[in-house]
Amino acid sequence: MAGNKCVVYVEPGKVEIKNIEYPKLELEAQHRKCNHGAILRVIATNICGSDQHMVRGRTTAPKGQTLGHEITGEVIEIGRDVEFIKTGDLVSVPFNIACGRCRMCKAGNTGVCLNVNPARPGAAYGYVDMGGWVGGQAEYVMVPYADWNLLKFPDKDQAMAKIKDLTMLSDIFPTGYHGAFTAGVTTGSTVYVAGAGPVGLACAASCQLLGAAVVIVGDMNPDRLAQAKSFGCETVDLRKKAELPDMIAQIVGEPVVDAAVDCVGFEARGHGQGASEAPATVLNDVMSITRAAGRVGIPGLYVTGDPGGVDESARKGRLGVDMGLGWAKSLSFTTGQTPVMRYHRQLMMAILNDKVQIAKAVNATVIPLKDAPKGYKDFDKGAAKKFILDPHGLIK
Amino acid sequence: MAGNKCVVYVEPGKVEIKNIEYPKLELEAQHRKCNHGAILRVIATNICGSDQHMVRGRTTAPKGQTLGHEITGEVIEIGRDVEFIKTGDLVSVPFNIACGRCRMCKAGNTGVCLNVNPARPGAAYGYVDMGGWVGGQAEYVMVPYADWNLLKFPDKDQAMAKIKDLTMLSDIFPTGYHGAFTAGVTTGSTVYVAGAGPVGLACAASCQLLGAAVVIVGDMNPDRLAQAKSFGCETVDLRKKAELPDMIAQIVGEPVVDAAVDCVGFEARGHGQGASEAPATVLNDVMSITRAAGRVGIPGLYVTGDPGGVDESARKGRLGVDMGLGWAKSLSFTTGQTPVMRYHRQLMMAILNDKVQIAKAVNATVIPLKDAPKGYKDFDKGAAKKFILDPHGLIK
Amino acid sequence: MAGNKCVVYVEPGKVEIKNIEYPKLELEAQHRKCNHGAILRVIATNICGSDQHMVRGRTTAPKGQTLGHEITGEVIEIGRDVEFIKTGDLVSVPFNIACGRCRMCKAGNTGVCLNVNPARPGAAYGYVDMGGWVGGQAEYVMVPYADWNLLKFPDKDQAMAKIKDLTMLSDIFPTGYHGAFTAGVTTGSTVYVAGAGPVGLACAASCQLLGAAVVIVGDMNPDRLAQAKSFGCETVDLRKKAELPDMIAQIVGEPVVDAAVDCVGFEARGHGQGASEAPATVLNDVMSITRAAGRVGIPGLYVTGDPGGVDESARKGRLGVDMGLGWAKSLSFTTGQTPVMRYHRQLMMAILNDKVQIAKAVNATVIPLKDAPKGYKDFDKGAAKKFILDPHGLIK
Amino acid sequence: MAGNKCVVYVEPGKVEIKNIEYPKLELEAQHRKCNHGAILRVIATNICGSDQHMVRGRTTAPKGQTLGHEITGEVIEIGRDVEFIKTGDLVSVPFNIACGRCRMCKAGNTGVCLNVNPARPGAAYGYVDMGGWVGGQAEYVMVPYADWNLLKFPDKDQAMAKIKDLTMLSDIFPTGYHGAFTAGVTTGSTVYVAGAGPVGLACAASCQLLGAAVVIVGDMNPDRLAQAKSFGCETVDLRKKAELPDMIAQIVGEPVVDAAVDCVGFEARGHGQGASEAPATVLNDVMSITRAAGRVGIPGLYVTGDPGGVDESARKGRLGVDMGLGWAKSLSFTTGQTPVMRYHRQLMMAILNDKVQIAKAVNATVIPLKDAPKGYKDFDKGAAKKFILDPHGLIK
Repeated sequence: MAGNKCVVYVEPGKVEIKNIEYPKLELEAQHRKCNHGAILRVIATNICGSDQHMVRGRTTAPKGQTLGHEITGEVIEIGRDVEFIKTGDLVSVPFNIACGRCRMCKAGNTGVCLNVNPARPGAAYGYVDMGGWVGGQAEYVMVPYADWNLLKFPDKDQAMAKIKDLTMLSDIFPTGYHGAFTAGVTTGSTVYVAGAGPVGLACAASCQLLGAAVVIVGDMNPDRLAQAKSFGCETVDLRKKAELPDMIAQIVGEPVVDAAVDCVGFEARGHGQGASEAPATVLNDVMSITRAAGRVGIPGLYVTGDPGGVDESARKGRLGVDMGLGWAKSLSFTTGQTPVMRYHRQLMMAILNDKVQIAKAVNATVIPLKDAPKGYKDFDKGAAKKFILDPHGLIK
Repeated sequence: MAGNKCVVYVEPGKVEIKNIEYPKLELEAQHRKCNHGAILRVIATNICGSDQHMVRGRTTAPKGQTLGHEITGEVIEIGRDVEFIKTGDLVSVPFNIACGRCRMCKAGNTGVCLNVNPARPGAAYGYVDMGGWVGGQAEYVMVPYADWNLLKFPDKDQAMAKIKDLTMLSDIFPTGYHGAFTAGVTTGSTVYVAGAGPVGLACAASCQLLGAAVVIVGDMNPDRLAQAKSFGCETVDLRKKAELPDMIAQIVGEPVVDAAVDCVGFEARGHGQGASEAPATVLNDVMSITRAAGRVGIPGLYVTGDPGGVDESARKGRLGVDMGLGWAKSLSFTTGQTPVMRYHRQLMMAILNDKVQIAKAVNATVIPLKDAPKGYKDFDKGAAKKFILDPHGLIK
Repeated sequence: MAGNKCVVYVEPGKVEIKNIEYPKLELEAQHRKCNHGAILRVIATNICGSDQHMVRGRTTAPKGQTLGHEITGEVIEIGRDVEFIKTGDLVSVPFNIACGRCRMCKAGNTGVCLNVNPARPGAAYGYVDMGGWVGGQAEYVMVPYADWNLLKFPDKDQAMAKIKDLTMLSDIFPTGYHGAFTAGVTTGSTVYVAGAGPVGLACAASCQLLGAAVVIVGDMNPDRLAQAKSFGCETVDLRKKAELPDMIAQIVGEPVVDAAVDCVGFEARGHGQGASEAPATVLNDVMSITRAAGRVGIPGLYVTGDPGGVDESARKGRLGVDMGLGWAKSLSFTTGQTPVMRYHRQLMMAILNDKVQIAKAVNATVIPLKDAPKGYKDFDKGAAKKFILDPHGLIK
Repeated sequence: MAGNKCVVYVEPGKVEIKNIEYPKLELEAQHRKCNHGAILRVIATNICGSDQHMVRGRTTAPKGQTLGHEITGEVIEIGRDVEFIKTGDLVSVPFNIACGRCRMCKAGNTGVCLNVNPARPGAAYGYVDMGGWVGGQAEYVMVPYADWNLLKFPDKDQAMAKIKDLTMLSDIFPTGYHGAFTAGVTTGSTVYVAGAGPVGLACAASCQLLGAAVVIVGDMNPDRLAQAKSFGCETVDLRKKAELPDMIAQIVGEPVVDAAVDCVGFEARGHGQGASEAPATVLNDVMSITRAAGRVGIPGLYVTGDPGGVDESARKGRLGVDMGLGWAKSLSFTTGQTPVMRYHRQLMMAILNDKVQIAKAVNATVIPLKDAPKGYKDFDKGAAKKFILDPHGLIK
């Protein structure tokens, strides 16, 4: 119990496994006791696309930043104030940390909890500007407000048998679902999902679960497009010179869809082979092919400070958005971190009852914790895989 | 019955009263029969801020464009297919023309009807790019799909006694209400309304009707701010050097509100005395002072083509929007033309039962049709008035 | 073109095929012109459980009542005022007749249109007290307000290939879906559907389409339960002596579900082999097994006059409902005719893109029009089939 | 600190002030520690109509039952797990006790919390079958899960100046509002509120706050009807022989309203002078005058066990409800305890900003704690007053 191996950001392009302190029921960064917290043995913890923003040096993350906010684990210790969660429970941890007592939490907006980050609403594990909570790409991690935050799986054996699916509940499955849900995807919808990374694929699977008639995924990475095709999506290859509306029309018979989701965010590139970064490309794309009175979900991350932005405006998160077009079409937009708690229970039920194969959709690939640096590299190169770290070798 | 006087756009800065053809039950611009239409004697027709965009030369409106889309009138002739509206009915005309038969209309999205404008979804009377329908700042006007579009007032005498209120049902009252409603304004909300023109004032009155606890209106025009104060709004004077969040905090005790509404649109100017045009100013303002997880209503007009835009991007409606900030706060946005029909009946009920004094809120001012050119000029100079044209001298 | 064969109610337990008049663009029963109407060659028209109420003598339907409100057909004539529907279109007809011009239609409540039935809100084809519109279990039928009411299939060949599925869009698929939707069924829900007749089966299929984790269907008819099992539902056999909550608990691990739907209505029987009629049984059942704060959908028909009711109260539609239990659990209830138009387009999209196999779920069985009397009899005996009448022998 | 005076139920028709134990941070009835709790000096605590059900002997409340669930107070002690609520805070207590950690609480359904009552979902202070929590018509009371349950007023002096309004936040104002809200009352609605007791009056005031065009209150008590009139409601006197639809039509011009709310519950009486109890009267009344596709809110209490019920069915909460009528009109119903937390913050904002005069609407009348027995008697006789107990003589 002396140590705790954890993935740590070292410098742009580089992460390492370091020994950090074994978790306590407190948060040193905020000088804060967490008797409401629990300590987990991490069973599965995934590498996320938003981790890559830090590792690429596209945020203000300091060297030594611990990483990891997609966490599933077994409770091995609880604080004195924890009443319902018990030692031995196998649980999913929403990536957004929430107190369960503030106005935002009471309204279900756990992504912008007011009590967990002195700097701004909202917090997360192992993330820059998100409150200083220690990352969970580790052997052990502390989760505050355990009774509020944790989702207990009803049966441990059943859960371990589906652990590669259930580990997606901590972030990307709810995030993809939130994108689809806030875009109004429902029975019979036609949908365009921008981006075939893990969130895009999780969004596409969510669209299917929500009953969409046609799900089209767009990307420039052929492996990821193939992955999207593997579970029944249509695809558009953005390396082509064709116009996006035309490619959409070839699939659904008209140049618009009912709903669109931006699963890319601010590191978007323009279209065509070798296109350079153009941060509003995806936003403007999705507006161009969404039907009048349609809705656009924007789970893809946009930031207020981007040291690597293409110009001064981009470096502060100000982008050239086609407002005139959006307005003329009466579009609506939903942005922001997904409040995972709003969705994780129902998505767990869908997984446990075989209504969705989310691990397969995102090509979940288990690797040991020690291989995390290679996982980060492969993922950054565009591997059509979602890497699950297995710190204790417990996943079959 | 030989002629029909109508306000017509002549050149930038200039409108005139011209004799145009008496309406027929057809639309020549689209070579289309309108046996489903009705001809109205116009009782009241208002000058709208969006008319000013055309008159200022900020659109591609051709010379000779007929004007007027805020219409209240008496039915004097009906087409053979009109079944429920009768001659003699006193009616309000939604500014958006809708067929009542397409997918959009069936879903209540009458602002983007698919069957009334060959160029794009959505149409309006007397407006550029909106289908060629003849304007209603006139003595007579034809309204298509009369059974669908028209809202009949239950009692003519009662209606004439409140005609200055009821005439606001054709556009600005629903438009202000839509802005407030889509921003999530409800019982107890704190709200910021950007712009104290007629739509902003109608929005502020709508916020009160929706039960808002505090309604703050921001503008640079002192007369318009005084008008907002006259019915119980708080105000912020944007000519001041103070930061908007600080001014908000002085009123509500924190630098954010629950909801915000952009009632200005693309001709926004920056802050401070003599500030020049900066088209995304209001959008970025409202994002900066909206609470996390809040919603922003955007009834203010943004266009896809603006010949007078400040730069090349602005001329095609592409604006520098603080996406990073909006995303970090998990904001949602609703844009577009208000589907008037969604709201006009319930707002009529509120007027007829004295639950709102909308004419007083917007300082409704009746002038004869022949004085329309002066009305346009005064309004353009920032008069804190909403001008109602009275083509037949029927308003007391 | 001289005649028109139609299924007609003759006396309790008996229907016959009669020659009735070929349709005109008017409704004699209401002395009403229908220049907005269309005449259809009926391609498929289904026998509905609600037809059985009439045929069993459980309504005040007069002898000679024409039958049939589930209609799919080809437009062979249009009225002079029809603008968008064209001769040759293959269309689905919502069973509720609606004008598309009244307050209810504008709000999407097409099940209670105010302009199509002088006696009360709402109308239907071939149904007692529903406005006198002629039934569609016939060779030809007239549909009023064609531009509003009809749903055109995008491709005739594609539609004919799926006609056994698409014919369910006129009533039972939207009706089952409405029950599920208004019960709040969504991703991950556990649901109980009372009744395994065609509406119950359509509801169960709808629950799956909406993403339910577990769908349990209850009935006393073993063939119908087998049919429910055939597409992945769990079942409870209400002939058993076991308590319903216990049977639910055996399936989902707790004696409650998230949502429940009453697909039976007023001719419900008590539990156990040979149970007699007890009209509130299903209502009270579904309340007993719905989770606190859950919702109950009630598409099953309850009537204001039932000549065959078990007691005086039942004969006027007053039933002994466990209000105390429902209130203690904070339940919500949605009743009434399904507004088909709210759902049919999106369900069509799901069918055309192979997201649901509704014909298979309800065991769609095509028979010639002349065999309708046998179909009625078999269905009344509890055949686990949904009978589609094929008046022109056009269905493969 | 030795004792704690509290109102206690003694026998049917009789309450007394008794000395009970000073509160501890635990619940003896459940052998449960409450380190998450706070102890309050009660500033204001109201007599509720639902207390009367117990006092009239219409429930299974045992002798000695402590009373009082409408509580406003000052925090004088907090448990070790309380993090955000501080000693000295002036707070409103929702009558429903909730844990803030279970599935129901996370979804905002605090009226049916799963962790506070071993017998069933949902709990309250001082109420039979509601978990054994000690009543708050007392000098002091313990509130569990203080960080979750308590609503802190932002400014103590301001709050004390409006304490007669703010004390209504613990129950009847949210309860009346919930009734109105779930009935769909909004801008321009016409509404019928059954019952002019405090909840009915609070509902009527809520309807006005929600923007209703016409609010009609029905009762048989002339003083209460006069109270309703005093703040702008229309009234119908149910002692009259006239039919309810006719009385409605005289006010709004048609025999129906857009929405209706049952603020009476199971002790309803039939119409006319001296009418005897008829527990489904109000339910059937509100159905009869609600427009097709309308919604009915049912905050009035219905119970599963009523020793004084008019017949065997009524004694178990089974009532003769006009299901046929409700179904024919496509009505929807919402029942159950109001989840106070869903509304209390926004209603507080409305009070603090003078948007509603709820104390005046319900005729709030302050009496000393010792006069509670007289208050109960007067209220039971139909006094048009809402009694506020003032245990420490702190209300001006």
